[in-house]
Amino acid sequence: MSGATADGEAVEAANTALYDAVERGDLDALAELWLDDEISVVHPGWPVLTGRGEVMRSYALIMANTDYIQFFLTDVEVTVLGDTALVSCTENILSGGPAEEDGSAGPLVGGLVVATNVFRRAEDGGWKVWSHHGSPVLVEGEDEPDEEDIEG
Amino acid sequence: MSGATADGEAVEAANTALYDAVERGDLDALAELWLDDEISVVHPGWPVLTGRGEVMRSYALIMANTDYIQFFLTDVEVTVLGDTALVSCTENILSGGPAEEDGSAGPLVGGLVVATNVFRRAEDGGWKVWSHHGSPVLVEGEDEPDEEDIEG
Repeated sequence: MSGATADGEAVEAANTALYDAVERGDLDALAELWLDDEISVVHPGWPVLTGRGEVMRSYALIMANTDYIQFFLTDVEVTVLGDTALVSCTENILSGGPAEEDGSAGPLVGGLVVATNVFRRAEDGGWKVWSHHGSPVLVEGEDEPDEEDIEG
Repeated sequence: MSGATADGEAVEAANTALYDAVERGDLDALAELWLDDEISVVHPGWPVLTGRGEVMRSYALIMANTDYIQFFLTDVEVTVLGDTALVSCTENILSGGPAEEDGSAGPLVGGLVVATNVFRRAEDGGWKVWSHHGSPVLVEGEDEPDEEDIEG
């Protein structure tokens, strides 16, 4: 939608950075990307967590329990209104254990999550995460995420 | 958090109105509460729907398939930054069929959903819904939603 604007591109880069930090398991980098307070997160299937302490602790827990995770983002939609940006996207997640001894990939599992991420323009002009809400897609052809026809 | 301010109270009222409209099955009232465009919604377990057409059609579908629904909102947290407000809340949902012939209530089922709702200040000073994201709570004592201890 507004993806062609400079703001839109900066927001999309901030959104990508959020997932990159989780992929790398880099909690310090992740913490830098968020607003200082009044933040909230919902991980798929989890209750709401609010405040920097709870949010960062949840990511530390997820990182500690994840050997490998990769996000392929699709359907990324960015809307900027004033100093706030809303991003919706589909997280096509590949996660699994460490590589086998012979170098081949360990067992991998896929997952489909949709996310609404809210960003706020910071004083230095950069964009910081205000809220992340991810939820599992439970209906309509999880095997065919490209088919999103809603016939009502 | 910011719930004690006038803005916070107005946002909380707008948030309540959103659920009231769904409870009443009043699609016209619901449509009035949203921004005109660039809106998005995620219903629990659904993919992302964007744009007024898709969003309103999804609510029409939900209303057509729901005989009775009531939302008891808890853990409502409102944060206002400039012209944007972020609300997180827990939707304790009671839904079911129509009343029995003898006047007693029909079979009821409960559900627990967490939501992140984003509001935008409109030109007339009111608050309009920009995004609603609801997701099922699948982990941690669904029977005891008050217990949210995360021990990491």
